[in-house]
Amino acid sequence: MSATIAPALEIDAGDTVHIHTVDCFENQITSNDMDFDTVDWERQNPATGPVFVRGLSAGDVLKATIERIELDGRGLATVGPQGGVMKDYIEERHVKFFDLDTENNTTEFNGMTVPLSPMIGVIGNAPATGHVPNSTPGAHGGNMDCRKINEGAVLYLPVFHEGALFGLGDVHAKMGDGEVGISGLETAARVTVRLEKASGISTNHPVLIDIEGINMMVSHESLDEAVDESVRQMIKLLRPHTGLSLPEIAMLMSLIGETQINQVVDPLKTARFFVPHYLLEHYSIDLGRELKP
Amino acid sequence: MSATIAPALEIDAGDTVHIHTVDCFENQITSNDMDFDTVDWERQNPATGPVFVRGLSAGDVLKATIERIELDGRGLATVGPQGGVMKDYIEERHVKFFDLDTENNTTEFNGMTVPLSPMIGVIGNAPATGHVPNSTPGAHGGNMDCRKINEGAVLYLPVFHEGALFGLGDVHAKMGDGEVGISGLETAARVTVRLEKASGISTNHPVLIDIEGINMMVSHESLDEAVDESVRQMIKLLRPHTGLSLPEIAMLMSLIGETQINQVVDPLKTARFFVPHYLLEHYSIDLGRELKP
Repeated sequence: MSATIAPALEIDAGDTVHIHTVDCFENQITSNDMDFDTVDWERQNPATGPVFVRGLSAGDVLKATIERIELDGRGLATVGPQGGVMKDYIEERHVKFFDLDTENNTTEFNGMTVPLSPMIGVIGNAPATGHVPNSTPGAHGGNMDCRKINEGAVLYLPVFHEGALFGLGDVHAKMGDGEVGISGLETAARVTVRLEKASGISTNHPVLIDIEGINMMVSHESLDEAVDESVRQMIKLLRPHTGLSLPEIAMLMSLIGETQINQVVDPLKTARFFVPHYLLEHYSIDLGRELKP
Repeated sequence: MSATIAPALEIDAGDTVHIHTVDCFENQITSNDMDFDTVDWERQNPATGPVFVRGLSAGDVLKATIERIELDGRGLATVGPQGGVMKDYIEERHVKFFDLDTENNTTEFNGMTVPLSPMIGVIGNAPATGHVPNSTPGAHGGNMDCRKINEGAVLYLPVFHEGALFGLGDVHAKMGDGEVGISGLETAARVTVRLEKASGISTNHPVLIDIEGINMMVSHESLDEAVDESVRQMIKLLRPHTGLSLPEIAMLMSLIGETQINQVVDPLKTARFFVPHYLLEHYSIDLGRELKP
């Protein structure tokens, strides 16, 4: 992601966009019989875009409402010595294909029925400076691999350039927190997203609101540091709305907040700090999402 | 916790024990008007015990079924410069008291209703060597601060000494994953627990089964390492039951497993790796818990 890439589409703030995505291997892997040496493994995690959103400029926050995620009927997953928690114990790359039952929202893994949970792996704006590979998450979003970025979720992303220059890709039909094997159930998809200018929120890191509550996402080489910073950033975001002193809100976060993990396998790891809805409701914090299911 | 402490009680494997616990400050803090300098802050996280369980010896696994957690009607929480994610930003110790509505399972925080989720913070056997302060978690259990150690949960703990020498304390009426302020909602309690010899499970780290699935808990100075090792230990535990190859189970864990966090504020941090019930059911893995709600 980079501000130097020419927009593929220009829209008005408030418009809804249908975005077609290829899978995280750019749809290069078609069967287990193919020679994986012919695959260009550098072409990973492509995002579709950028979308130039008129009316947004540096310093604003983009509000992206994920209205729909329609999966392709076929997906794949991979593990190997190239990455993931078990990389030192796996000698060669393995690829597995899956038929996705999008009607019943399930798939099969060696005969076991697995429920699907479609989500967007890569989603972000052009970063503040230079370019950031789509393998890597950051304050601009990118490869955050958050399983909560699903239908109905609202994502707030800092804007660093005129038009935001938004893109997304790397849709997963299923992924567990951590993405410990380095691959989710990767698939092509069509995503419907509404893009507008956020009001009432100021943040330096991606913030996600879903049906359960609010999540602050911070990426860092060290998970320890990512977790700690996600707590500090959440307190910075919420405290002005609550009237609580710093010691009070720190105590409250210890009781009702939750340190959670997006992924531990990308060049930077991503932590999220979660606070349940009832806090937003109690303090009438309206961050622009219809809170009822 | 230490094998040198004489047992407070001796029971047969299979017996159910009622254990009374003081709060994590040994009930020393009685009001906000008191002089906190008179509190001995070294007397933290006392466990009640040890319980000598006849029939268990080194190399066995203790199965502890948490049948009941009855809270005292009053609790407290604290934050300060002594610990927690926000310790560098808080100048002095703050203490807050809570009335616990044990009938409706709620309390109030500055007028906001907060649901309670009673759990056991410190629970473990005598460690393999020496003594481990009750502030610290490890392979023996100890201060794991896992919010899933609640009513109905089954905890498996490695046994290092004849009789296991089991103890527990540090009950929380409420705590969020991470325990980021260093204190949960601390209270005295009465815990009813059945202690027996586990069969069909071999583990070097604490394993918890609850209504949602199975959790492997690993403590380490670095959260990064705790997370990775919890994944490796879970794969080691589950793989023999599944017939899956190592690449296959690594891929499956990436899709359906979840890296989660117990706490990030104790001398060692504790990660847990979670796998949902449907995997245990599919492979008929019976770890001794009635799986239906």
